[in-house]
Amino acid sequence: MTLKIELLNTGAELMLGRVLNTHQQWICRQLADRGYVVDRQVAVDDAGPSICDALREALGRADLVITTGGLGPTSDDRTRDLVAKELKRPLREDPQVLDHIQRMFALRRRPMPASTRVQALVPEGATVLMNARGTAPGLVLETPPRPGQTRPGLLVMLPGPPRELRPMMIEQALPLIEKHFPVEAPFVCRTLRTTGLGESALEEKIAPALRPVLERGVEVGYCARTGEVDVRFVARGARARELVAEAEQVSRALLEEFIYGTDDEVLEQVIVRQLTERRQTLALAESCTGGFIAHRITNVPGASAVFLAGLVTYGNAAKERFLGVKPETLAAHGAVSEAVAGEMAEGARRVTGADYALAATGIAGPTGGSEAKPVGTVFLALASTAGTVVQRRANRFERETFKYVTAQQALDMLRRELVKPPPA
Amino acid sequence: MTLKIELLNTGAELMLGRVLNTHQQWICRQLADRGYVVDRQVAVDDAGPSICDALREALGRADLVITTGGLGPTSDDRTRDLVAKELKRPLREDPQVLDHIQRMFALRRRPMPASTRVQALVPEGATVLMNARGTAPGLVLETPPRPGQTRPGLLVMLPGPPRELRPMMIEQALPLIEKHFPVEAPFVCRTLRTTGLGESALEEKIAPALRPVLERGVEVGYCARTGEVDVRFVARGARARELVAEAEQVSRALLEEFIYGTDDEVLEQVIVRQLTERRQTLALAESCTGGFIAHRITNVPGASAVFLAGLVTYGNAAKERFLGVKPETLAAHGAVSEAVAGEMAEGARRVTGADYALAATGIAGPTGGSEAKPVGTVFLALASTAGTVVQRRANRFERETFKYVTAQQALDMLRRELVKPPPA
Repeated sequence: MTLKIELLNTGAELMLGRVLNTHQQWICRQLADRGYVVDRQVAVDDAGPSICDALREALGRADLVITTGGLGPTSDDRTRDLVAKELKRPLREDPQVLDHIQRMFALRRRPMPASTRVQALVPEGATVLMNARGTAPGLVLETPPRPGQTRPGLLVMLPGPPRELRPMMIEQALPLIEKHFPVEAPFVCRTLRTTGLGESALEEKIAPALRPVLERGVEVGYCARTGEVDVRFVARGARARELVAEAEQVSRALLEEFIYGTDDEVLEQVIVRQLTERRQTLALAESCTGGFIAHRITNVPGASAVFLAGLVTYGNAAKERFLGVKPETLAAHGAVSEAVAGEMAEGARRVTGADYALAATGIAGPTGGSEAKPVGTVFLALASTAGTVVQRRANRFERETFKYVTAQQALDMLRRELVKPPPA
Repeated sequence: MTLKIELLNTGAELMLGRVLNTHQQWICRQLADRGYVVDRQVAVDDAGPSICDALREALGRADLVITTGGLGPTSDDRTRDLVAKELKRPLREDPQVLDHIQRMFALRRRPMPASTRVQALVPEGATVLMNARGTAPGLVLETPPRPGQTRPGLLVMLPGPPRELRPMMIEQALPLIEKHFPVEAPFVCRTLRTTGLGESALEEKIAPALRPVLERGVEVGYCARTGEVDVRFVARGARARELVAEAEQVSRALLEEFIYGTDDEVLEQVIVRQLTERRQTLALAESCTGGFIAHRITNVPGASAVFLAGLVTYGNAAKERFLGVKPETLAAHGAVSEAVAGEMAEGARRVTGADYALAATGIAGPTGGSEAKPVGTVFLALASTAGTVVQRRANRFERETFKYVTAQQALDMLRRELVKPPPA
């Protein structure tokens, strides 16, 4: 029988569009990586009837139901009470949980408000997931089999804050889920991350060659994201790993250098890894990307070993002062030009002594364009011992997408240089 | 009667946790701003039975159902067909839509694949929403009243890509929704954005004084986000605006400078606006934040008028070279120190001539901490004509949160300086 899984998030702020629901992706991803695919995601506000309806429907439809939120101490935290009522499991104060809550407050040297104590109430028969980062414990209950099934279900209740939910899910909830619902057929999911090709061009390139392996049970999915396209292969069953590997191999032979990484890898990680392996260093000269490339590089742990400095030279004076861009070049070509991009990269390399320097100068908009250089015009430069190369791009997007795409192109210029085979 | 609204997103990539669902927040937000609150968000994969079940349930529960995705040309785009079948509305080719698709391909100078033509199929009686940014049109259908109701419902189908969906929703779908379901009672939502206080400290500060206005029908919500807490007031009815204004006034009197903005305003916007009004300039010297503060400032259109340069000095050599930090200071106190933070800010101000310079130096981790300066230790400095102030913070978070919180604290230091009343 197929395991049915449903995810239920609660919160008025979700219905009002005040916050982005990041739980869905994170939880579904953790489950998928272990062979469990969620069938339905539901979100409702935190009013009693909304939660009750959604909960009752989920328990009628799914074997595994995971809820988030509503376990805290305030009046809009209703999940614990509603579940206890719905499943007729009286709440009892758990001395261990109470002790944990008291100790959390003592650690923070704060008095414990009386309201906090409700978090120690546990429905009869529930397994408690202790919360290392907060006061509200997670709760797991065995539920009656859904209609037509004989196997009991599982209701997993997790606290709302991501920094509490995530370690609890990984360390405590997932092992329980894997024990209760052993994965019957191996499930393999592999994502190839590409940049430099559009979604349809990419599909055209690989679809014919992939047909045979798809016919043997691999599913392919394309997902166009800003500045890149993911190709995803999914298979289930005894031969899943082998089939997905074959699909990957076929695609790699055709896509070659358009693939920059796999699964969750991001371009900046690939670059920091490559530079670290080569013991080489990087400097950045950013105008239109405004520090975003430096931000991405420094998001990677260990970046300090390869990243020397980033000069965010927004004004012309800063380009001259920090990068040695010549006033004549600025006057003759303008700040957004091939010549200035080249001097920026060379200047950043010279003043920092880095092996590689990347530069970006362009018109992010919404204003500042001209006929010869419309909004979106970008010049990217890469300086190295091999000399300086400059590329012109037309990135006509709103401001933040513009910065993202431009950064992606600049990082990809460097990646392609780093993966080149050394000259014979 | 209360209008019931349901949002239905489809996509296997959502169930596998491969992408973040940003449609939910965006669509709910657009609706809430116009007085419509969504009751339920559902997401399922793009298999026929999943969509059919979810669609049937939504139509049975809600007056207004909005779907996203499944209108494209590929084999996993099933929404159009399934809706036509479910509502018994035969599909007919719409010559205007076909003409639009053909022109889109002609514009891009590409041959039109035969499969593309399915996007011109329109269920009988549907209103077509032309797609200015893509080929798949949106579709709107009047649906039978849900059980117990007499007013016909509305089914709005939007294409999946955000850059196609968003303008179509605002320019075409929302006006139709407002015409079909006129808002009966005004709805007001106001968010105060605060930084510098924890969620419970903030609630304690304002809850007693808010009680009277809450009793008259204002709902309050607290939402703790990284480095900040939102306070949200919601009211409905003839006096909604007045009541929410009163709640805001009461809160402002107690929270004062902890409130940095309202609604969607972010800290960097407040700063760029303040500096622009004062015709003053800013420079940045970033070590541990790695360019993220510069990135946030340059996300604001018009930042170039106030932002001179950002120096991302990750290594000691860069701190000396670009900011004039003294080698003795680095040797005596280490790069993460009060003295170095001060010299970084003063150096950035000196070399750029900016009115204000912010500096951040700290230990992002996961490694690099010591007993005296554990991972998370940060020194923030602000240099101005008024002199230099340095603050020490302990930001023990994983790397990206560390950068976000540190940037937030640095920007808030500057904001507090900018909102100070001028000396008498």
